[in-house]
Amino acid sequence: MATAATPSALEWSVENCTISRTLGVLGEKWTFIVLRDVFLGIRRFDDFIEHTGIGRQVLANRLAALVDAGLLRREAYQEPGERARHEYRLTGKGIDVYPILVALREWGDRYAADAAGPPLLTVHRDCGASVSVRLACAAGHDLASPREVVPRPGPSARRRTRRPTAAD
Amino acid sequence: MATAATPSALEWSVENCTISRTLGVLGEKWTFIVLRDVFLGIRRFDDFIEHTGIGRQVLANRLAALVDAGLLRREAYQEPGERARHEYRLTGKGIDVYPILVALREWGDRYAADAAGPPLLTVHRDCGASVSVRLACAAGHDLASPREVVPRPGPSARRRTRRPTAAD
Repeated sequence: MATAATPSALEWSVENCTISRTLGVLGEKWTFIVLRDVFLGIRRFDDFIEHTGIGRQVLANRLAALVDAGLLRREAYQEPGERARHEYRLTGKGIDVYPILVALREWGDRYAADAAGPPLLTVHRDCGASVSVRLACAAGHDLASPREVVPRPGPSARRRTRRPTAAD
Repeated sequence: MATAATPSALEWSVENCTISRTLGVLGEKWTFIVLRDVFLGIRRFDDFIEHTGIGRQVLANRLAALVDAGLLRREAYQEPGERARHEYRLTGKGIDVYPILVALREWGDRYAADAAGPPLLTVHRDCGASVSVRLACAAGHDLASPREVVPRPGPSARRRTRRPTAAD
């Protein structure tokens, strides 16, 4: 049986947590699936439907949300004899989601792949070696484990103003 | 107006996509928030509630799902004069979620932080420099952009067996 002191994290507010805010934009499975597909070169409404099986209304909502949030932009195209439609392309803000997708995929490749292995590999264009995310520090050290990482209050850290208790 | 050839991604099945499977485990905002808190040292039911404002039933469901999925384990503890309770600790499978959280936080620190900056910094224990995720290849090259990454069918890649059309 363990007992523990009060975790110091309880002293700090999470109201401006940037993980939480990111999940406010991205925290829905279909959002990541749509972004995955855009990174795989899929740009058109019917292609998303065909590739993923996503429902039309869910897709329309997800695409609109991603455009509103500035991760995708709409670009007009027109096939001969058809009406003008839109493709969806990544903005810089959208491209910056890529490490999140790679990190999700790496975890999945390790813990959720078929016995045969992962369905998709990503390799470095210039050398052909497989690509992954690494934890590293600004001084250039690779980190082998989260245990080498220490949290520090950032410039917008706020102390929590009250600690509600069971007596509240 | 752009027109485009059929994206090659449409040739491949997503039924065993490991991003999708990962989101089947993790693809819910509160799941990530609970894991964030565990990495911050929070381990007890009431501390999660106090720190995050998560509802008790949602928290109970998320913790049970994370235990079932093998990311957290329960460990008994007992405060003097109280009944035995459980703390939640990361397993190896849970610890391996860390790069996903760092990637989410980095994106949020860039696009969703307060004007003052991020609320939390993470630094390398050994040198104090800030920690981030990097894209790198197995040959040791840092990648500056997703444009340097090329997808390849993996060992469990499956061709899609049919392409439903509007005529289906």
